[in-house]
Amino acid sequence: MEQESASTQATEVRSEGYGILDSINSPADVRRLRLEQLPELCSEIRRFLIDHLSVNPGHFASSMGAVDIIVALHYVYDTPTDHLFWDVGHQAYAHKILTGRKEAFANQRKLGGISGFPNPLESDYDTFMTGHASNSISAALGRAIADRNTPGNEERRTVAVIGDASISGGLAFEGLNNVANNPNNLLIILNDNEMSIDANVGGLHKYLSEMSTSAGYNRWRAKIFNAFRNKGMVSEQGKGRIQRFANSLKSLVSGKQNIFEGLNIRYFGPFDGHDVIKIVKILTDIKDMQTPRLLHLHTVKGKGYKPAEENPAKWHAPGMFDPETGEKLISGSKDCPLPWQEVFGRTLVELADKDDRVMGVTAGMLSGTSMTRMMQAYPERTFDVGISEGHAVTFSGGLATGGKRPFAAIYSSFLQRAYDNIVNDVCIQGLPVTFCIDRAGIVGEDGVTHHGLLDIAYLRCIPGLRIASPADEETLRNLMYSSLQTCGPLAIRYPRGKATTKDWETEMRLIETGKGRTISETPDSRVAILTLGPILGEAVKARDILAAEGTPVDLYDMIWVKPLDEGLMRKITENHDIVVTVEDGVATGGFGSVVTEWLRDHGRNVEIRTLGAPDSWVKHGAVGQLRAQCGYDADGIAAAVREMVGKR
Amino acid sequence: MEQESASTQATEVRSEGYGILDSINSPADVRRLRLEQLPELCSEIRRFLIDHLSVNPGHFASSMGAVDIIVALHYVYDTPTDHLFWDVGHQAYAHKILTGRKEAFANQRKLGGISGFPNPLESDYDTFMTGHASNSISAALGRAIADRNTPGNEERRTVAVIGDASISGGLAFEGLNNVANNPNNLLIILNDNEMSIDANVGGLHKYLSEMSTSAGYNRWRAKIFNAFRNKGMVSEQGKGRIQRFANSLKSLVSGKQNIFEGLNIRYFGPFDGHDVIKIVKILTDIKDMQTPRLLHLHTVKGKGYKPAEENPAKWHAPGMFDPETGEKLISGSKDCPLPWQEVFGRTLVELADKDDRVMGVTAGMLSGTSMTRMMQAYPERTFDVGISEGHAVTFSGGLATGGKRPFAAIYSSFLQRAYDNIVNDVCIQGLPVTFCIDRAGIVGEDGVTHHGLLDIAYLRCIPGLRIASPADEETLRNLMYSSLQTCGPLAIRYPRGKATTKDWETEMRLIETGKGRTISETPDSRVAILTLGPILGEAVKARDILAAEGTPVDLYDMIWVKPLDEGLMRKITENHDIVVTVEDGVATGGFGSVVTEWLRDHGRNVEIRTLGAPDSWVKHGAVGQLRAQCGYDADGIAAAVREMVGKR
Repeated sequence: MEQESASTQATEVRSEGYGILDSINSPADVRRLRLEQLPELCSEIRRFLIDHLSVNPGHFASSMGAVDIIVALHYVYDTPTDHLFWDVGHQAYAHKILTGRKEAFANQRKLGGISGFPNPLESDYDTFMTGHASNSISAALGRAIADRNTPGNEERRTVAVIGDASISGGLAFEGLNNVANNPNNLLIILNDNEMSIDANVGGLHKYLSEMSTSAGYNRWRAKIFNAFRNKGMVSEQGKGRIQRFANSLKSLVSGKQNIFEGLNIRYFGPFDGHDVIKIVKILTDIKDMQTPRLLHLHTVKGKGYKPAEENPAKWHAPGMFDPETGEKLISGSKDCPLPWQEVFGRTLVELADKDDRVMGVTAGMLSGTSMTRMMQAYPERTFDVGISEGHAVTFSGGLATGGKRPFAAIYSSFLQRAYDNIVNDVCIQGLPVTFCIDRAGIVGEDGVTHHGLLDIAYLRCIPGLRIASPADEETLRNLMYSSLQTCGPLAIRYPRGKATTKDWETEMRLIETGKGRTISETPDSRVAILTLGPILGEAVKARDILAAEGTPVDLYDMIWVKPLDEGLMRKITENHDIVVTVEDGVATGGFGSVVTEWLRDHGRNVEIRTLGAPDSWVKHGAVGQLRAQCGYDADGIAAAVREMVGKR
Repeated sequence: MEQESASTQATEVRSEGYGILDSINSPADVRRLRLEQLPELCSEIRRFLIDHLSVNPGHFASSMGAVDIIVALHYVYDTPTDHLFWDVGHQAYAHKILTGRKEAFANQRKLGGISGFPNPLESDYDTFMTGHASNSISAALGRAIADRNTPGNEERRTVAVIGDASISGGLAFEGLNNVANNPNNLLIILNDNEMSIDANVGGLHKYLSEMSTSAGYNRWRAKIFNAFRNKGMVSEQGKGRIQRFANSLKSLVSGKQNIFEGLNIRYFGPFDGHDVIKIVKILTDIKDMQTPRLLHLHTVKGKGYKPAEENPAKWHAPGMFDPETGEKLISGSKDCPLPWQEVFGRTLVELADKDDRVMGVTAGMLSGTSMTRMMQAYPERTFDVGISEGHAVTFSGGLATGGKRPFAAIYSSFLQRAYDNIVNDVCIQGLPVTFCIDRAGIVGEDGVTHHGLLDIAYLRCIPGLRIASPADEETLRNLMYSSLQTCGPLAIRYPRGKATTKDWETEMRLIETGKGRTISETPDSRVAILTLGPILGEAVKARDILAAEGTPVDLYDMIWVKPLDEGLMRKITENHDIVVTVEDGVATGGFGSVVTEWLRDHGRNVEIRTLGAPDSWVKHGAVGQLRAQCGYDADGIAAAVREMVGKR
């Protein structure tokens, strides 16, 4: 659900024009086309996506796969009077292109440009903001029921489009389980490309794929259905009945049961999700049904671009590439430091080599977290549970009761899905689960739904949970090692992207719980900067800027949010009268607040300023740009110190 | 999942002795019994439960219903070498009684006594702490896999017991979806009593009940199965195959699909969950299967006690009662104030009367939150979504996009399940959902899993979310009214139990966002106490204690955590040099931290002390006892002020 860093400036897109697409400025224009023109429009949109995403990176493979569904939806439905709810939403680029954002698309995911995800603040056609998986059914159900209960809006239609990976999340199931409770006209479209970002997992996935491959049965069912239809025997009600009988018969033949029918949701499918004309016909048939129903469409991730069709996981968010050859254009030298994830992944295998208790758990982000390495080395000790963060954490708790030492690697913003599980199923019981919180801090182009800015604030109120953040790879490695040497739960947060050093594979050593370190001190400094995590790099630059200006500043890498290094705090407050904290997270209730609370409780009379993300939503853009906006890049830190020193 | 306040002292239990049960001190004793003795043991346990719970209240109806399953499990399985995972766990009293806690049972849920829920710190027979619903499958799966991967533990067996309401939660589905991914021997027992605390809802519920009532089919299936068995044709593998064929055939006959089979989980049932001898036989048959499987048992809530069988919702947690007549012994006069919930429930209906946009949403706590009133008055505008807090919040977000004004009433500790939904599906989009956070603060006897102590800390870091807490019913009412007059999301937290005044039904009036109020001031006071919510009552008492000692104290009810009343803060800090904050929540990162951060950012040189729950887990006991332990009852507040004044 995120991708390689985009460059700051939009690169010019070369194109020879797009025929029909050039004349499309809104869905109303789509609806004016003849049905036979739609396949051509779909091809043009795919060319448009290749042209743009090859130079201005974004989510590629899923967007290519969803083109035909999107064109059909806008053709059949009266958007935005009718509502489309996307799930995750990074597959909805074609929707953005058709809904007045064709020109703006060149600046997608860039600072000030349009978002990479649907966003109601951006367009009336985006009914709901999405970014995290599995929420579309619940949200769309709310909308469908709201419209039904609003005079004048009763005829509006609501569609939720959800992928086969997203539908395996617990939230989606809760939605499905509630769909049939109240009268509504919700249509759920299951965009089934048989994969998540990585391969899909779980019983539901197996179920869907076996359902899809029963081709003989499908032919037979279609024949019966068409025979009835041709004789005019298919009424609104009868249509559902035939379908349901057919589904039951199928379950007997295949030995597989239809889960959706079990939940009282009418099931249609599976059909080819790339046959736009057929999708239009099916949608036209079922769009005015007044009962909740699910249409199962089968698509291919990367459809229309061979290299992506052949290796969809690698083309999920490929970065820049040569459209002709499919060759990826990797920026930066191969000599630069590894990503944090890679350090995590390699260290985990090293720990597993030495300690049988070590297990790896991830929730649908096997390659994103670099858990792939562990999966290759120890498949029986590695668990990718799919998009199920809650389960991932509770399952880890269960492993820990059996003496195991699970490392649960989950992105910071997605870990919000597992909050109660962290509290109840791990921390209350003091179980030794290591939370490896990936993508902590500002993540850049993926924007507001994906920044990992809240974790310190929402975790530090949980009794018994230790929280640390390494400033460098060596410390990450040693924190992971130290977790195994100590008891109880531990959260280690680190950001996306490249780390700083290359020589990190040193002998592992214990980092004492609650021990920070001094980075640099000068005899005359009145100012102490306390940092947490890799943002130390910006503080180092700020220190050097300030030193050049004649303002010496001392620098401390606290490493631990909880417990805070009290000895170091005592030393710092004895020798400084100005303290600045810097964190890549919200300042409200975050690391700076921990330091503030300590000063309060210990009656230290120092002036303190806490730098971090503001109490407002941080949008998308390059990481450096956003840090500058938030005032905690090197310049922001230096400015804060200057102001405080000046005031005194 | 919680119940009426227990008295502080255990009342004496009258009993004539329990025959077999008197000789049972551990599950090993159960396993020594002859099979035919088990029904008598079950009857005795039920009598024991009636004798005890009638004088020392607890969860009654679900505990009575689970007796036979529990006896059978301990008879067949080698506990604690084999592991039992309970879901929610308030049905597991019989398990506590059989596992060495028969005498301790008289002090269950009391300060220093045993917990009302399974707790590993209490007994080796309690493998996992439970309290929140739907986690058992995930946790037990972790344990089953841990054992399978631990030399020497491969033969240990794991059973998860989950109710039909709990299994509708998204977390349970995530567990089910992952059960068949890795080799394991997990047995899931579905204890199906066809209800939640209130009536059960959702497609899965309908599915289960229709499955259960197809009696003719069940007879037929049992005949075939027994015929094969008698001919010795049922092998380990064959047993599953017959079952699966039978399930498929059933889905054809009934038009219903077997969801569990769809998820690749072997399904057995439904069987009578009160026929202990039959359960023993079935368990013996399937206990050594090496594949995940689900056994569906049908039970009656309150089984063995007529009044409870007839009205199980009212007997979920009935408080004290007369065992002979079933008459409930309600303590306190009818003249006392209403519970907070009742004020919420009545006010919601009043608002709904005047404003068509108002809708009510609850997650399985219709009567607990008093949403019952809204359901009666406006069934089409009220939604009980079952145990699905995440869905409840996202669904509310969807309603809000359609111009509705949903009030989502969810218990504080359960709202932890919906954290990401609050962030992404409501607050990022600024949608006007009113979170009515019930059971905020210390809840008393339900203990550690149920206290609502974290909400202020975990919510206040979310940009755009306003947070308030009323000190009295009138303010609750006016905050609810004010939410409708303003934009954006708002969280209102209030505790369980009785409120303070009786005359609360005054004309509704707007409470300005971010405006607190002065409760009392005296000319010479140097000390200001700032409170949030109904804990004001304790602060009033503390003020009076201190005044009598000659220490005048001024009192402020801040009402708003966010935004904080800056005008009032300025006034307070100009006129006082000691500030004490009091909140019914964790002090770490809570309301006191908000005040501390304000003082920091405004350079106010006042001494501050923040009273609230400690950074450790608060256990069970009476609310007053626990508040005293945490140091924020009247005496604790007075002591804190005395100490600060003395130091100065």
